[in-house]
Amino acid sequence: MSYFSEVAPIRFEGPSSRNPLAYRYYNPDEVVEDRTMAEHLRFSVVYWHTFRGTGADPFGPGTMQRPWEDGTDSVQNAQKRARVAFEFFEKLGAPYYAFHDRDVAPEGASLKESHANLDAVVKVLKEEQQRSGVKLLWGTANLFSNPRYMHGAGTSPNAEAFAYAGAQVKKALEVTHELGGEGYTFWGGREGYQCLWNTDLKREQEHLARFLHMAVDYAKAIGFTGQFYIEPKPKEPTKHQYDSDAAACLNFLRQFDLLDHFKLNLETNHATLAGHTMQHELEVAGAAGALGSIDANTGDLLLGWDTDQFPTDIYLTTQCMHSILKYGGLKTGGVNFDAKVRRESFEPIDLFYAHIGGMDAFARGLKIAAAIRADGKLEQIVADRYASWDSGLGAEIEAGKHDFASLEKLMLQRGEAAANQSGRQERIENLINEYL
Amino acid sequence: MSYFSEVAPIRFEGPSSRNPLAYRYYNPDEVVEDRTMAEHLRFSVVYWHTFRGTGADPFGPGTMQRPWEDGTDSVQNAQKRARVAFEFFEKLGAPYYAFHDRDVAPEGASLKESHANLDAVVKVLKEEQQRSGVKLLWGTANLFSNPRYMHGAGTSPNAEAFAYAGAQVKKALEVTHELGGEGYTFWGGREGYQCLWNTDLKREQEHLARFLHMAVDYAKAIGFTGQFYIEPKPKEPTKHQYDSDAAACLNFLRQFDLLDHFKLNLETNHATLAGHTMQHELEVAGAAGALGSIDANTGDLLLGWDTDQFPTDIYLTTQCMHSILKYGGLKTGGVNFDAKVRRESFEPIDLFYAHIGGMDAFARGLKIAAAIRADGKLEQIVADRYASWDSGLGAEIEAGKHDFASLEKLMLQRGEAAANQSGRQERIENLINEYL
Amino acid sequence: MSYFSEVAPIRFEGPSSRNPLAYRYYNPDEVVEDRTMAEHLRFSVVYWHTFRGTGADPFGPGTMQRPWEDGTDSVQNAQKRARVAFEFFEKLGAPYYAFHDRDVAPEGASLKESHANLDAVVKVLKEEQQRSGVKLLWGTANLFSNPRYMHGAGTSPNAEAFAYAGAQVKKALEVTHELGGEGYTFWGGREGYQCLWNTDLKREQEHLARFLHMAVDYAKAIGFTGQFYIEPKPKEPTKHQYDSDAAACLNFLRQFDLLDHFKLNLETNHATLAGHTMQHELEVAGAAGALGSIDANTGDLLLGWDTDQFPTDIYLTTQCMHSILKYGGLKTGGVNFDAKVRRESFEPIDLFYAHIGGMDAFARGLKIAAAIRADGKLEQIVADRYASWDSGLGAEIEAGKHDFASLEKLMLQRGEAAANQSGRQERIENLINEYL
Amino acid sequence: MSYFSEVAPIRFEGPSSRNPLAYRYYNPDEVVEDRTMAEHLRFSVVYWHTFRGTGADPFGPGTMQRPWEDGTDSVQNAQKRARVAFEFFEKLGAPYYAFHDRDVAPEGASLKESHANLDAVVKVLKEEQQRSGVKLLWGTANLFSNPRYMHGAGTSPNAEAFAYAGAQVKKALEVTHELGGEGYTFWGGREGYQCLWNTDLKREQEHLARFLHMAVDYAKAIGFTGQFYIEPKPKEPTKHQYDSDAAACLNFLRQFDLLDHFKLNLETNHATLAGHTMQHELEVAGAAGALGSIDANTGDLLLGWDTDQFPTDIYLTTQCMHSILKYGGLKTGGVNFDAKVRRESFEPIDLFYAHIGGMDAFARGLKIAAAIRADGKLEQIVADRYASWDSGLGAEIEAGKHDFASLEKLMLQRGEAAANQSGRQERIENLINEYL
Ligand SMILES: [Co+2]
Ligand SMILES: [Co+2]
Ligand SMILES: [Co+2]
Ligand SMILES: [Co+2]
Ligand SMILES: [Co+2]
Ligand SMILES: [Co+2]
Ligand SMILES: [Co+2]
Ligand SMILES: [Co+2]
Repeated sequence: MSYFSEVAPIRFEGPSSRNPLAYRYYNPDEVVEDRTMAEHLRFSVVYWHTFRGTGADPFGPGTMQRPWEDGTDSVQNAQKRARVAFEFFEKLGAPYYAFHDRDVAPEGASLKESHANLDAVVKVLKEEQQRSGVKLLWGTANLFSNPRYMHGAGTSPNAEAFAYAGAQVKKALEVTHELGGEGYTFWGGREGYQCLWNTDLKREQEHLARFLHMAVDYAKAIGFTGQFYIEPKPKEPTKHQYDSDAAACLNFLRQFDLLDHFKLNLETNHATLAGHTMQHELEVAGAAGALGSIDANTGDLLLGWDTDQFPTDIYLTTQCMHSILKYGGLKTGGVNFDAKVRRESFEPIDLFYAHIGGMDAFARGLKIAAAIRADGKLEQIVADRYASWDSGLGAEIEAGKHDFASLEKLMLQRGEAAANQSGRQERIENLINEYL
Repeated sequence: MSYFSEVAPIRFEGPSSRNPLAYRYYNPDEVVEDRTMAEHLRFSVVYWHTFRGTGADPFGPGTMQRPWEDGTDSVQNAQKRARVAFEFFEKLGAPYYAFHDRDVAPEGASLKESHANLDAVVKVLKEEQQRSGVKLLWGTANLFSNPRYMHGAGTSPNAEAFAYAGAQVKKALEVTHELGGEGYTFWGGREGYQCLWNTDLKREQEHLARFLHMAVDYAKAIGFTGQFYIEPKPKEPTKHQYDSDAAACLNFLRQFDLLDHFKLNLETNHATLAGHTMQHELEVAGAAGALGSIDANTGDLLLGWDTDQFPTDIYLTTQCMHSILKYGGLKTGGVNFDAKVRRESFEPIDLFYAHIGGMDAFARGLKIAAAIRADGKLEQIVADRYASWDSGLGAEIEAGKHDFASLEKLMLQRGEAAANQSGRQERIENLINEYL
Repeated sequence: MSYFSEVAPIRFEGPSSRNPLAYRYYNPDEVVEDRTMAEHLRFSVVYWHTFRGTGADPFGPGTMQRPWEDGTDSVQNAQKRARVAFEFFEKLGAPYYAFHDRDVAPEGASLKESHANLDAVVKVLKEEQQRSGVKLLWGTANLFSNPRYMHGAGTSPNAEAFAYAGAQVKKALEVTHELGGEGYTFWGGREGYQCLWNTDLKREQEHLARFLHMAVDYAKAIGFTGQFYIEPKPKEPTKHQYDSDAAACLNFLRQFDLLDHFKLNLETNHATLAGHTMQHELEVAGAAGALGSIDANTGDLLLGWDTDQFPTDIYLTTQCMHSILKYGGLKTGGVNFDAKVRRESFEPIDLFYAHIGGMDAFARGLKIAAAIRADGKLEQIVADRYASWDSGLGAEIEAGKHDFASLEKLMLQRGEAAANQSGRQERIENLINEYL
Repeated sequence: MSYFSEVAPIRFEGPSSRNPLAYRYYNPDEVVEDRTMAEHLRFSVVYWHTFRGTGADPFGPGTMQRPWEDGTDSVQNAQKRARVAFEFFEKLGAPYYAFHDRDVAPEGASLKESHANLDAVVKVLKEEQQRSGVKLLWGTANLFSNPRYMHGAGTSPNAEAFAYAGAQVKKALEVTHELGGEGYTFWGGREGYQCLWNTDLKREQEHLARFLHMAVDYAKAIGFTGQFYIEPKPKEPTKHQYDSDAAACLNFLRQFDLLDHFKLNLETNHATLAGHTMQHELEVAGAAGALGSIDANTGDLLLGWDTDQFPTDIYLTTQCMHSILKYGGLKTGGVNFDAKVRRESFEPIDLFYAHIGGMDAFARGLKIAAAIRADGKLEQIVADRYASWDSGLGAEIEAGKHDFASLEKLMLQRGEAAANQSGRQERIENLINEYL
């Protein structure tokens, strides 16, 4: 039975279309820089917001009209919901989805029952994947909702919470592997602290490292070769999460010898909550060879919580795609809409509007970024700016031929450094507008 | 000639004193946890704010009354100012001071002249150190004020700016060594970017690493064995500084093999600009074995720039001293007042009020922190909280005896994790108030 | 049946007590500035957080252990809960409480049923008030949780939502009146917008004004003479709430001729979310003669949402009580703990710790503020600072005897203004520490 | 003598132009909604940033290359600078400029000398206005830079600082009047506080009101009929400025009976420092009939100080122009670039790039806003959303025909309010992208 029968599959109609249920920019087979848009963008729908989001917030319960829901948390309802989700993925033309274990199937009264519930729904997911061709971008385990994880999972002061989390991730890895998932993500929702006075930060970080090593070992044991990701977020729900931003994650991965096994899954709203632009986080990860995937959304910079809004700002999507193209494109990763419709956008059709807008904004950003690169003016400005490092003194320094003594000798001769060039920020900002 | 003749040396008079020019808590020889307060706190006055701060801000020029200034930027004026500074250090009873090269002596028309100017003032500093017994906590070079460094120093796209900075740090290291400085600090004021579109972040970070390695090498060459510090700050003056917080610094130091040579100099106002508490930064650095020194000040959390106010909040100073005691105390580092009087506090006497308030607040924080530790209630709460890791399952996990399979087996048997304990945050916050 | 049988009534034991279930500062009958502490502080417990808070957050469900709950949303359970609440109020020694209509009684399937449910519980509240002597500080209606109010209540684009809200407030006013409530509060949880593009701000504000006038009229009609309050909050749950801060509320009240009927109920966490200190909001309201009551809590200035933590910082409570004493004390208002225990503080005993800590912090703040006032040093500093306005030129200006021409004439004669005095901020901050 | 001889007058070349010294969107004579672009936009260049900005920041001195400057603060240099400024205005094609008294002429040793200096430069400004046709949008007095104003001007605790400020504004009004200025602006740079403990907020606000009344009276006395503006800013340089946002200004103007005489001059960066969007501030002012003029710039929402960047984001300029068109367009006001080139953009040509980019962004925003209005889809969505208020119950409520009793009666009959409509925020955000 169809739940979106009034919606035809979403098609590309070009920029002049006024049809709100069509793509104006996303044309999956259109080639940009030698790859199709579909290959560049690898769009993914998230199960948690799109099929489990109720519209509840701290000041009120859910609002969402979801006619396929029977109001229970049964396995049967979960199986039905899974089929509705795939109808949505297909109508939208999204090639990927992502989920937490507890999104797709209800938690049972015991671990054993939870495992069984998950198996029962995974069976449907597998059928639907095969039927539709939609694939799993990455899986993950929800280690933050159940009260057992109130103090963290890998970082819990309760050793049994750690153990339970290990069991849960084991199963989630198996299921991800079974469904051909191309990656597995850790987002440390409560892996941090509410209060430093009662926290042994060092011990907790060591536990978290051990937890992640166990995951790496278990993936190897079962032959899962998908990419592991860590998703930074600085705070919310806790006062501070250890995976606070790209740099903090990289520091942790280096300290505990995990950098070979993990890349970063960066989210715009988490970047801004950490006080960074998404472009910053992409460049930090890219420069470290650790840019894995993105959670495509946006926050409201005047609000201090994770609003997870659908991204429609083409400056943002241009920046994202420019960095992604620069660092060689998404490999196993994707443009994953970790975004939710507003509580007031409660009709199923709003889910279509929201995803179409996000996909079109990213397609447009891709085209703009590619145009910037093809034109070459921006890259030339940057090359000119660093030219003093490409030969002469700069090249010698980079080659290790100088020390402070030789530099001082040189500068005592010259008396002053060569003049600087204007940074031309205003000109560059205007230039970006030329491609919009 | 005395410029503070109306101020007698500041003495400890005890908590009941109402004399605003006396210490109520700072009693240098009083023993706390087996060391004197002077040994614990190692107070340091900063030359830049206290003797070069004018009260100028982006909306108006200086306001400060400094009768010893003759209004010129001459070496002679600089020498006179140095003697006034030592009078201040002595009257205050501060055992240390800290400076940038360009604070103490004027920049000349050429590097050679700048070197000569610096030598002429260092001669006076040395005399004054010997006369007074006041010591140099750390030296540093100003690599951010001169327009040559507008795009950075170690990270400049202009290779000659890098070279000039190298020459300047070489001299600053020599001078610090000559004055018996116990450390040397890098604060990367413009080592970052204003605009990512014109920035090669990766190349800039590599240059910065090379720069710091040159410093390490040169220190070795001249026999300087003082501690190197990096001082994190996320932004201001630039949009983003690479040394943005403790975690970002540690990541950088690990990536470029510099962690053995550097510790962190943490500043409260920089912590909060980065979205962290000072306690967080202290714990992150302490857990990594990299807690070096602190720039003792406070910011205004509702303002977004570095207000560098004198610290008077005893919750803050208690947190600082509690972490410092926990991690073994300051070794080469100190409690360095990187703080400035408000533009409206323009009289010389305000410098005394400000430092006395800060020193007393830290002395009080030290006593409170020591009382917390002596009482043991807080430590007991934390020990109880992590008890499940000290034996049984937790101890086995820490010992490497478990993997996901063994954890799952255990949890399938038990069905659910053992119950959590209350985090007791409210009780703990009340408990802290018991020691105030 | 007692649900807190293990807790004896909380008593004052003095500052040296180490009993976490005793007051160290709050001594209800102790006289401070001619009134008892109880009269000054008028402590109030909020029903919503303390008896309806579950510990749920956007990333997980409730955690709270509340053994008196039977898990249903029945009227019977609500009646039982009400009796438990009064046991808590009594054990704590809190003279007041506050509630929303939907906190105390379940919403029914129709307005009529909701009215009936409320009546059934109000009967118990009334009995318990009479039995215990605990009084109602203020009542309010929940106009933000039900999906009917997703777009606002008084500001909804749906006129029937406005109408329903009117019916609900009518009943809430009647009930508040019946219970002898000393006030009635409007907090505009969704009275604002999520998106300006779809919002008619002007029309919505006019509707809100009409709504409040209807409330004033109805209170008059039924003889309710309690004080009306508006509680400012800038955002959360919406992007922007019209009652964003004290100044915005006063502007609204002036524009729509409501200032005679309303005072402000100020909350610390709402102040800081608006970018203000609580002291600022208290002074703004006080200067306008509109300081009514306070929601005593604290936020975390590094987090961007309403954490509603219990207040334990004695600088904050000193500032609150200093402003309150300055403006003549709370009349109909109180120190209302709109605060919730952390999700991890899930035991009933944590409710005691939390309230005791908050009450003690306010009692301590009251004593410190009174000591500051008794000592007079601070007031003298301020008086000296403004002395130029008390006679001569300043007094003439205040008396309306000058215009720009006369001022210019004077200043052309003098050439320059008389010298400024130092603002002495650092000295003042030290002075405050003398009273702690 | 020309200082921009290498720059030809900036011309409109259309969107396909790649000439960075041409307009791609700003075509002064092009008609949009029945007025020319020039009439809509009324672009204004600010003298302070563009001709007095040095590039100094709290961490370094100026960087700007301004070959016309002779390095002195002489009247002669000021006169020469004024002629250079008009060459710039003309080449750019900006019809307006704005200045502070102390921008255009140096402050003298006495008030008399300052008056004379100002007269000497105003003579040149007048000549240049007549020669070029460039007009004065508004004048203002700098009441924040001189140390005499460290504690404020109209709000100073020093009555003579108030008096001096009165004399200064008197002269600034005269000069503005003489130059045919179309308005006069108050921006209260230090009209606020650094520390509430030493501040009499109520008395200061009363003084400020008196000060503004004196200005109104003096304008009347000399026949100046230009528009008065207040420009809100929440903080910086002080901890808090009384004119913190549009609502706070309106509250102040209402309280002190000044609302008939003032409109608001809104600045984007000040809006965001206050926690609001510029669109919010425009709507608040517009709804109150107080939208006067805009300071067109942008801030960086991740930085906490007033970066005053040139606006290039077309979402922002679209929002600005949409609100301005909605409220009837700018009358006496203009699009005034209170914006400065980055410290690293130190060449004169950067001033052209910066203004061209800002003007083009606003022209583009105007065209997009007009297209949205012409299309009507957005306006239709809003009209539909509020339709329940246009007839029936809503219309009755607006007409004053209901009270709480009649609303309750109605809702008891109906049981529940009519269903809400989806807010459609995602659809609307996509719709806006259709016009870009
Ligand atoms: Co995410
Ligand atoms: Co998120
Ligand atoms: Co510092
Ligand atoms: Co600082
Ligand atoms: Co509240
Ligand atoms: Co709150
Ligand atoms: Co402005
Ligand atoms: Co500004």
